[in-house]
Amino acid sequence: MKKLDFRSDTVTMPTAKMLERMVQAELGDDVYGDDSTVNKLEALAAELLGKEAGLFVPTGTMGNLLAIMSHTTPGQEIILEENCHIYLYEVAGIARVAGVQAKPIKGIDGVMSPKDLENAIRKENIHFPETGLICLENTHNMAGGMVVPLENMESIYALAKHKNIPLHLDGARIFNASRYLNKDVKEIARFTDSVMFCFSKGLGSPIGSMLVGTKDFIKKARKLRKMLGGGMRQVGVIAAAGILALEEMPKVLDIDHTNAKLLAKGLNKLAGINIDIEKIHTNIVNVDFSNTGLSTNQLIPKLQERGLLSNPRNNDVIRFVTHKDVSSDDVKEAIEMIKETINQG
Amino acid sequence: MKKLDFRSDTVTMPTAKMLERMVQAELGDDVYGDDSTVNKLEALAAELLGKEAGLFVPTGTMGNLLAIMSHTTPGQEIILEENCHIYLYEVAGIARVAGVQAKPIKGIDGVMSPKDLENAIRKENIHFPETGLICLENTHNMAGGMVVPLENMESIYALAKHKNIPLHLDGARIFNASRYLNKDVKEIARFTDSVMFCFSKGLGSPIGSMLVGTKDFIKKARKLRKMLGGGMRQVGVIAAAGILALEEMPKVLDIDHTNAKLLAKGLNKLAGINIDIEKIHTNIVNVDFSNTGLSTNQLIPKLQERGLLSNPRNNDVIRFVTHKDVSSDDVKEAIEMIKETINQG
Amino acid sequence: MKKLDFRSDTVTMPTAKMLERMVQAELGDDVYGDDSTVNKLEALAAELLGKEAGLFVPTGTMGNLLAIMSHTTPGQEIILEENCHIYLYEVAGIARVAGVQAKPIKGIDGVMSPKDLENAIRKENIHFPETGLICLENTHNMAGGMVVPLENMESIYALAKHKNIPLHLDGARIFNASRYLNKDVKEIARFTDSVMFCFSKGLGSPIGSMLVGTKDFIKKARKLRKMLGGGMRQVGVIAAAGILALEEMPKVLDIDHTNAKLLAKGLNKLAGINIDIEKIHTNIVNVDFSNTGLSTNQLIPKLQERGLLSNPRNNDVIRFVTHKDVSSDDVKEAIEMIKETINQG
Amino acid sequence: MKKLDFRSDTVTMPTAKMLERMVQAELGDDVYGDDSTVNKLEALAAELLGKEAGLFVPTGTMGNLLAIMSHTTPGQEIILEENCHIYLYEVAGIARVAGVQAKPIKGIDGVMSPKDLENAIRKENIHFPETGLICLENTHNMAGGMVVPLENMESIYALAKHKNIPLHLDGARIFNASRYLNKDVKEIARFTDSVMFCFSKGLGSPIGSMLVGTKDFIKKARKLRKMLGGGMRQVGVIAAAGILALEEMPKVLDIDHTNAKLLAKGLNKLAGINIDIEKIHTNIVNVDFSNTGLSTNQLIPKLQERGLLSNPRNNDVIRFVTHKDVSSDDVKEAIEMIKETINQG
Repeated sequence: MKKLDFRSDTVTMPTAKMLERMVQAELGDDVYGDDSTVNKLEALAAELLGKEAGLFVPTGTMGNLLAIMSHTTPGQEIILEENCHIYLYEVAGIARVAGVQAKPIKGIDGVMSPKDLENAIRKENIHFPETGLICLENTHNMAGGMVVPLENMESIYALAKHKNIPLHLDGARIFNASRYLNKDVKEIARFTDSVMFCFSKGLGSPIGSMLVGTKDFIKKARKLRKMLGGGMRQVGVIAAAGILALEEMPKVLDIDHTNAKLLAKGLNKLAGINIDIEKIHTNIVNVDFSNTGLSTNQLIPKLQERGLLSNPRNNDVIRFVTHKDVSSDDVKEAIEMIKETINQG
Repeated sequence: MKKLDFRSDTVTMPTAKMLERMVQAELGDDVYGDDSTVNKLEALAAELLGKEAGLFVPTGTMGNLLAIMSHTTPGQEIILEENCHIYLYEVAGIARVAGVQAKPIKGIDGVMSPKDLENAIRKENIHFPETGLICLENTHNMAGGMVVPLENMESIYALAKHKNIPLHLDGARIFNASRYLNKDVKEIARFTDSVMFCFSKGLGSPIGSMLVGTKDFIKKARKLRKMLGGGMRQVGVIAAAGILALEEMPKVLDIDHTNAKLLAKGLNKLAGINIDIEKIHTNIVNVDFSNTGLSTNQLIPKLQERGLLSNPRNNDVIRFVTHKDVSSDDVKEAIEMIKETINQG
Repeated sequence: MKKLDFRSDTVTMPTAKMLERMVQAELGDDVYGDDSTVNKLEALAAELLGKEAGLFVPTGTMGNLLAIMSHTTPGQEIILEENCHIYLYEVAGIARVAGVQAKPIKGIDGVMSPKDLENAIRKENIHFPETGLICLENTHNMAGGMVVPLENMESIYALAKHKNIPLHLDGARIFNASRYLNKDVKEIARFTDSVMFCFSKGLGSPIGSMLVGTKDFIKKARKLRKMLGGGMRQVGVIAAAGILALEEMPKVLDIDHTNAKLLAKGLNKLAGINIDIEKIHTNIVNVDFSNTGLSTNQLIPKLQERGLLSNPRNNDVIRFVTHKDVSSDDVKEAIEMIKETINQG
Repeated sequence: MKKLDFRSDTVTMPTAKMLERMVQAELGDDVYGDDSTVNKLEALAAELLGKEAGLFVPTGTMGNLLAIMSHTTPGQEIILEENCHIYLYEVAGIARVAGVQAKPIKGIDGVMSPKDLENAIRKENIHFPETGLICLENTHNMAGGMVVPLENMESIYALAKHKNIPLHLDGARIFNASRYLNKDVKEIARFTDSVMFCFSKGLGSPIGSMLVGTKDFIKKARKLRKMLGGGMRQVGVIAAAGILALEEMPKVLDIDHTNAKLLAKGLNKLAGINIDIEKIHTNIVNVDFSNTGLSTNQLIPKLQERGLLSNPRNNDVIRFVTHKDVSSDDVKEAIEMIKETINQG
């Protein structure tokens, strides 16, 4: 049975052209700095994001963890939005590995108020940890892929600079934000000191993420990457796919965004479902099924039987993610499957 | 100039009788288990709290940290109220030393809803840290010394047992809670797996806190105490004061509670000040000065010039703490000083 | 200029057949357990090593770190040979990330005496950390690729079991040991609780290592891999090369071993060089140049100018590593280059 | 039965004069910097040791841990002698809490060769942790209280300065070293960046140790002391004993040193015992009983039955420590007890 896989854009398969590039890539041992393909990718990414240097990492989780370790000292506190990925979905590595305390702030659609953020910055007091970092996430996964406005980022970055606190962006889906805003990723990244973004989500690469920042920052992160065991060898085989992803894939995200709206509009026609279409900025659709009388624990296996894969947010909400491997026809089929499943109760 | 010191009950001086006990105490090297005075104190505390064993520690902060380290494994998450002392005032030791991630929950007057707490417990998922501990605080310092109701503790403890998660109580001021509730500390401690309480706050001892729990838990904590450097030698010299504190001081706290109400009522007569007397449960009075036109940064130094010492909560609120070394006359004098200071603007 | 790269077997390039397999691999998102290629590789590796389960990791360093984290609790002590890779070359991750103290033991050619090891195991004492793990390395990199005898491993494993301490093998080059001993890797692995081995060294894969052990151990390690950021997505693209590496490459290591002896014998003819050929077990040749009057700081750049790449061990010793991308002719050429370089002084 | 307690000088009881001082001490809350007695003690200690500032800590273990945390960054490596107290007897806090890797060096009688030390300093390499600290111990406990020569300390300190690596001295018994060398403690401390010493060993105070160094260093350590839970309140009650200890007790150590020699000479007359009297520098006598046919596991309980307490070093060696609470008559009695015990076999 064909699977309609809406669980995440991480499930995307490499394109034929990517695989071709991977096979033809010039390789070397990256621990010695000899892999020209990854070197090219790191330089390209840094340039696109407007930063001095880049570091290829196996995953976004490692990229975020390295950023936090490089910016902070164990025993500091970091401020982040209470539903962000770093805080909720990265296995508490910030505490166990980076040794920093999380100070989560309640946001609205993933957006923190600069005022709340300012109040959360610690004053000098022997009882207090220092505030060592502010983390943002754009697009914001748990907020249904919504884009944090540039004005908000600008205000927060100004505050961070004023307080001499570094700012890291979890930009796993920064290219989705870029397409929504119709601005270069550089225009987003300029309100940050470092950015992590992923090749292995909507951009379709099989493996890998990128961390960018100043040369000093990347030098620190490179050594810490070795410590965590992220210093791979002939990494050009996967970096080659990343180069193609940067060259060709960002514009493809527009289709994912259109498909997400298509899905939302289709589902809105079903009884008990009410999605605010204005909030479908990119490729994620969080759907609240609580008024259909079915819990996500009931729905998800039923959908799966029909070949439709999805992930729960909680007891009421399912997240559907569009990506290059689900077409508009797939979306229509998914809507139909959901409709029938609900109707059967 | 005489100082009226309302900064904290930690400033209390040992009584003459305490000092006498300290000098006469039977001593030994506690690292070898030879100090009969501290052994007696640990047994007495365990009995009073209804637990199997006790461990004397230099401070409440160490007691809490040891409890967290003993109950959890690095990489777990712990749930606590967002304004609790462990989270705000213990220098992020839970992250740097214990390696656990904080999951703060918004409480009302320091009281968390069992429902919120239940929602915060992590499900099994490869992205999630395990929930390793729930921490309560009673009385709740930042909530102005308010007492967490036993019914709330009972519900949360039932949940914790159901989910197989240990529960630690930061009972730095559990004797204040006990006097307010007119119940033995044991009646509070029964809804916990471990409790830390302080001799060096309202009970008047110069140094020391106590951690109680099961024998196994205390054995772990004792070894970790050695690691952190809390394994002192002829500790009976200070433990002797602790014994007296347990014998004679709890009832003295009633005076502190009366004095706190006296202070609150007196201040309520001043223009712009409005304290809810119902919320003055114990020995802490948080006073919001925002309607007087003076910030705490302005007020505190002015009060200090007059000999009245206090600590800010934030830009608007000053915390005043009553204790055995401020009398009702001192309280009246303090009210007068505050009145004059406000009037001078 | 052609490079003769004897720095490490990590520089090996994937074969054409590997690249072909990589392109044709069946893929999926491994975080969801959907990548059938990596699943196949993990099962194959576990079977070959005689363990219950396997976990693909980006690097050997991560594999070792995960093993240590999975076997131990922070605050324990681990025993290892004083020149082993984990202790010297893994950026102190065992302290910063795993939180364990290293107890290095002096070995002879990388071999620890069971007696020394037994003496190093901690007794119960409140001042002592517990001994949480014993680590071995076979082949032993710093000992010039020498093989730790199975009798030694057997004795140490018996001791470990008697003391109820787990034993982890850094078997980055276990296939080299297997070829030298003419025994299945399973025969080596049976004296261990877990093994890490590398695809990206002599076996020629571009990226990746494997950790094997019990199902429970691997379950723990898999979650910790997520925490460190080693949980990659369509990992089949590189795992496919690993499958080929296991099928076809072990026997190729024999050529590397022959070439190492060829190199050693050739260099032995040069004045001032004296290599014990009996100690050239596998593919590493440590050469002491101290009697040639040239330090490694002088020699290595001169050799590099001629196109011969190598790494220093220290001021006197250079390590040369043979692998599938240096032929016997390359070895002869290398000998010639070294000869000329020494002669020119 | 009277106990002759030779287990450690930590068992010393406070003198009557100390207890008197403790009762009369001017007190305050040290977290607010208000305890004039501890302030006086910190200033006095800093002056005696020739450093800018001091910090009173509950134990020597905490003092050492704070020094290591203040000098280093997690992930660094520290060099220390392989039998030093920090490495062997402080529960691996350096790994779990400070996050640093230990690089132990074999010394002779506790003295490391500057050459070995220089070789152990890490070069820059992406695989290597940085060397963040060198630790010395003087007198050296495991070396039987032997004194590390000032020339050795001077050489190592010169090396440390040349390499820009801080140097910490575990001077738990620095006053014993000072009496042996007949030099002010300042003359020893000048070859260090920080020193920890204990009041609660030979100096006879019931509780407490001192850390001294630059103002910046002590500021860092003070905050970290709060994190670990070492920030006590009316600490003047014990600091008062420390002041007396500094004023009156160092010269008393001479008697302990004489008694140690008396013990060693007396035991040397017994068959099978052979102590090098030249190595009895201070107040510790390690006695090898292996030629008496009795293991320490057999001997210690037999001695204890007679009222003589001692601690094992290992299966062959018992450590006897002299201090103010064992007189020369006690030493003679101890010799007699040991003699009889051995004779009874």
